[in-house]
Amino acid sequence: MIGFSSRRLARAAWLSCAVALAFELISTPAHAADGAHVDPVSRVVLMLAVLLLAAKVGGELATRLGQPAVLGELLAGVLLGNLDLMGFASVEAIATDPMIDMLARLGVIVLLFEVGLESTVNQMMKVGLSAFLVAVIGVVVPSVLGWLAARWLVPDASPYAHVFVGATLCATSVGITARVFQDLNVAKTTEARIVLGAAVIDDVLGLVVLAVVAGIIAAADSGTSLSYLDIFLTIAKAAGFLFGALAIGARVAPQLFRLASHLKSRGVLLAVSLAFCFLLSWAAGAIGLAPIVGAFAAGLVLEHVHYRDFTERGEHELEELIRPISALLVPVFFMVMGMRTDLSAFMQPGVLGLAAALTVAAILGKQACGLAVVERGIDRLTVGIGMVPRGEVGLIFANLGLGLKVGGKSIVDNATYSAIVAMVVITTLITPPALRLSLNRGKRAATTSP
Amino acid sequence: MIGFSSRRLARAAWLSCAVALAFELISTPAHAADGAHVDPVSRVVLMLAVLLLAAKVGGELATRLGQPAVLGELLAGVLLGNLDLMGFASVEAIATDPMIDMLARLGVIVLLFEVGLESTVNQMMKVGLSAFLVAVIGVVVPSVLGWLAARWLVPDASPYAHVFVGATLCATSVGITARVFQDLNVAKTTEARIVLGAAVIDDVLGLVVLAVVAGIIAAADSGTSLSYLDIFLTIAKAAGFLFGALAIGARVAPQLFRLASHLKSRGVLLAVSLAFCFLLSWAAGAIGLAPIVGAFAAGLVLEHVHYRDFTERGEHELEELIRPISALLVPVFFMVMGMRTDLSAFMQPGVLGLAAALTVAAILGKQACGLAVVERGIDRLTVGIGMVPRGEVGLIFANLGLGLKVGGKSIVDNATYSAIVAMVVITTLITPPALRLSLNRGKRAATTSP
Repeated sequence: MIGFSSRRLARAAWLSCAVALAFELISTPAHAADGAHVDPVSRVVLMLAVLLLAAKVGGELATRLGQPAVLGELLAGVLLGNLDLMGFASVEAIATDPMIDMLARLGVIVLLFEVGLESTVNQMMKVGLSAFLVAVIGVVVPSVLGWLAARWLVPDASPYAHVFVGATLCATSVGITARVFQDLNVAKTTEARIVLGAAVIDDVLGLVVLAVVAGIIAAADSGTSLSYLDIFLTIAKAAGFLFGALAIGARVAPQLFRLASHLKSRGVLLAVSLAFCFLLSWAAGAIGLAPIVGAFAAGLVLEHVHYRDFTERGEHELEELIRPISALLVPVFFMVMGMRTDLSAFMQPGVLGLAAALTVAAILGKQACGLAVVERGIDRLTVGIGMVPRGEVGLIFANLGLGLKVGGKSIVDNATYSAIVAMVVITTLITPPALRLSLNRGKRAATTSP
Repeated sequence: MIGFSSRRLARAAWLSCAVALAFELISTPAHAADGAHVDPVSRVVLMLAVLLLAAKVGGELATRLGQPAVLGELLAGVLLGNLDLMGFASVEAIATDPMIDMLARLGVIVLLFEVGLESTVNQMMKVGLSAFLVAVIGVVVPSVLGWLAARWLVPDASPYAHVFVGATLCATSVGITARVFQDLNVAKTTEARIVLGAAVIDDVLGLVVLAVVAGIIAAADSGTSLSYLDIFLTIAKAAGFLFGALAIGARVAPQLFRLASHLKSRGVLLAVSLAFCFLLSWAAGAIGLAPIVGAFAAGLVLEHVHYRDFTERGEHELEELIRPISALLVPVFFMVMGMRTDLSAFMQPGVLGLAAALTVAAILGKQACGLAVVERGIDRLTVGIGMVPRGEVGLIFANLGLGLKVGGKSIVDNATYSAIVAMVVITTLITPPALRLSLNRGKRAATTSP
């Protein structure tokens, strides 16, 4: 089925060796000519070269095994990031480098913009009710299940810890799901739109939940009580942004592009589109939402009709212009995400039971989402699976938990933290193959009973 | 000739207002929702949006005035970077932001790779002798003229200062010239190849001169003498790299791409090409050369025949894949370079005379380069003008000079430093229009006397 010839295997080994050699070189300090100026970009370009090559090798292996390329990139990242277990302590430098981190963040922004471009606001509004219900169920059910699991397995922890563990289960990593839909060429299906819309709303709801839980715990610590006004303001701001961005963006975008179409110099369409995406990402970040929410909204708002003037004079389609940029930056994001996955979390005693229970709660809880879809003829299993990956959002939640303290003591202990990380890793890694299976099953069902 | 209608002016004003507003927003700290996680990428995307929009407006105005777009980008940068003179102290944040700085450095690497792709090693070897002679003359003559000017105008400074000022005149900013050739669509002419080859060799020679001068000064300071072995090693390493990179690269590239052509996943050609460019850039940086030397060598080495397998199965040409990436990153480089231009250097008393003398020495000295061209039928004036801009290389030199001390005293005083900066600014800003004039003159001569 796969059919690697020994010659191909030799080639793959050759390329792997080159990657390993480059890694060794990173750890060797560069001895510059005496008195010469060493450009700091040297280190960054070496890291980028290693990430790009490793991502392509991982993506290729995954593709040959019939899996989405993103799974290969994640696993290549996990492998490289955990090389220190095997004695290569130096590779961690990549995952913690601030420039690589920033390029990864730019990467996920470009990815969500690209994915947003594949749908329009109108198409999204059509599935708006389902997406909203899916998001609400996807926040409530996993949180309750996670809270129950924590109460059952770590009864000695404080009630705040139970609440917090529950809250960490509500996240959805829209990056993973978006990329899988893209890899499998189904980003324009109704299922994909519902899941992506729900994941974006989920990001907003998750923020609200996190702010409220953090507020309750901070209030408990200081002996004061949480102001309802604060909770309300958080919700209003977050909800207001999504609708505001879509409404204002839809009015501004046509004017912006009509204005820009008078500029005749090279690359105007790309520059203005990226500036639009970046401005909305910044706006989302400025009110405390994830910037990717803004990037997705920017992609939804931009429609072909807005930049018709450019394509009519022979310029490339916007999607085609974005693709090379995402080919450079997006693998950086998934590689870094893989590299930050700490496999040693699985090896701590007392972690496995809680990790298993949280993972089951995380997966089953999101399956309830499928039931919330109001449209007919939708593959509910695909919707449920699409909501499963916690990805980087889950890790951000878990890290914030370590910082929340009551009476000077962190409410989440190390074993619980490791269990949450394990849950995030498993839900993230199983989604690409599970989503592919579910989509194929749907296709088979459609062809056998037309 | 230019023909701005009042409606167009109103539009331009509208866009400028939007840019100004965005600048104001940068200076306002973002108030995130309480307890929420503010993504550090927010600031970076806002800055990128501002840089992209301002670069396009500047580039457009320059294009409409018949100038290369890069002049507009530089001047837009100068304008924004010197807004603090007008009371906007906050804008400087962009020019000093480490992430923007890194993106700018990536930008010039991508630019030189792109420019390198437009020529092949064979084409470059054909003009190799001329390029080498042009580079040598371009280092020697301006340095001697600069040394004479410094001796004449600041006779009280130490002889080391005179030597150092002379050395700062030997640099050539290959970025500026490459971009002007690209803007004017003449990057494949023999003149462009000679200038680009010479500028790259000049980068190597400049490094040697700088290392030697710095070594002499450091030896004078410590009372020891400079080892000839050190000088020889610096020269050997630098020269070895250029030939080594071209020779090894030309052997490795075909194998690398044959190997990569077996990978079927999306974006392999771009990823492998960029990784190749990044690895050579890193190698150049690791031995103390500017990374752009490696990027240019990578571009020269890669030829269409290496990735024929990809284009034959319908993938885009490499040049087309790189273009969107350079459209995102390259303007960042020129905007930042403009923003770092300190106009207040011109306003210091006692600076103007020296600045004028150095500028004349810098321009006339490089005109001697044209005489070194051995080919017939070459526009020698274009070659001479192409070598004029000092750009970022000149600024790096000047900054290193501030750090060189004899007896605890910096050998370059502030007035001399400002004069060097002024010389760098003027040579950089006059090159785009001067090169365009010279190229047009050449074209006219060619059409009137065929």
